[in-house]
Amino acid sequence: MLNSKVRLVENMQFVATADSGHAVVMDGPPNVGGNNTGTKPSELLLMAFGGCSGMDVISILRKKKQDVTGFEMNVSGDVAEVQPKSFQKMHIEYVITGRNISEEAVKRAIELSLGKYCLVGTTLGKSAEITHSYRIVQE
Amino acid sequence: MLNSKVRLVENMQFVATADSGHAVVMDGPPNVGGNNTGTKPSELLLMAFGGCSGMDVISILRKKKQDVTGFEMNVSGDVAEVQPKSFQKMHIEYVITGRNISEEAVKRAIELSLGKYCLVGTTLGKSAEITHSYRIVQE
Repeated sequence: MLNSKVRLVENMQFVATADSGHAVVMDGPPNVGGNNTGTKPSELLLMAFGGCSGMDVISILRKKKQDVTGFEMNVSGDVAEVQPKSFQKMHIEYVITGRNISEEAVKRAIELSLGKYCLVGTTLGKSAEITHSYRIVQE
Repeated sequence: MLNSKVRLVENMQFVATADSGHAVVMDGPPNVGGNNTGTKPSELLLMAFGGCSGMDVISILRKKKQDVTGFEMNVSGDVAEVQPKSFQKMHIEYVITGRNISEEAVKRAIELSLGKYCLVGTTLGKSAEITHSYRIVQE
């Protein structure tokens, strides 16, 4: 069981805390009454997906002794403009930089993360169509 | 289209940024190779859900001229222990404090948020069973 407490501070600013003890500020833009002091909740969902899968992928690549010198992901989400709105599609691009990086290892790491290990991804994958791509930058 | 960039900093520490310009630090506990310097991605998912629905609910209650003096949510998630793991159930408790708060207004605000407006909730509601409860504290 995972828990989070989310508290209104003022206007549209909320501060969320969780069992790990960390806090995140959320807010909305002025057109919804916010002051843009923090991340939008919908953005946080994409961040959670990237962080979750990123931890799996880097962990697997390290176990496979891959010499990764940089790693980033671009996560995007498409929202259906019908009511009720929900994420229809998500895409995650993995950009791995390093020396003699094995494409096979990268493919397998992504496959294991999205298909098995990443709790956020497996949950979102039941609601939205998730696609992915990768780019390997050899140094 | 919503976008986020998630970048590895070191060990299991990732920093995510999004279109709104805000950044969030994610990390894992030592047993997965992290240093616990930030929120876990799975916690971030619960935070996103609470923030998203909270913004709807407070916005509707304000339109209905409700005198809310405090508002918080407790969000919890249950993960199935089968592979692939995913969130099976989520529960969100709304705690509204104020003067002469109308229970009808609270019920309707929650209903509109979970059923229609909250992008994170409608997305997660396709994957997990979402239940809710509310508590009104009259001052």
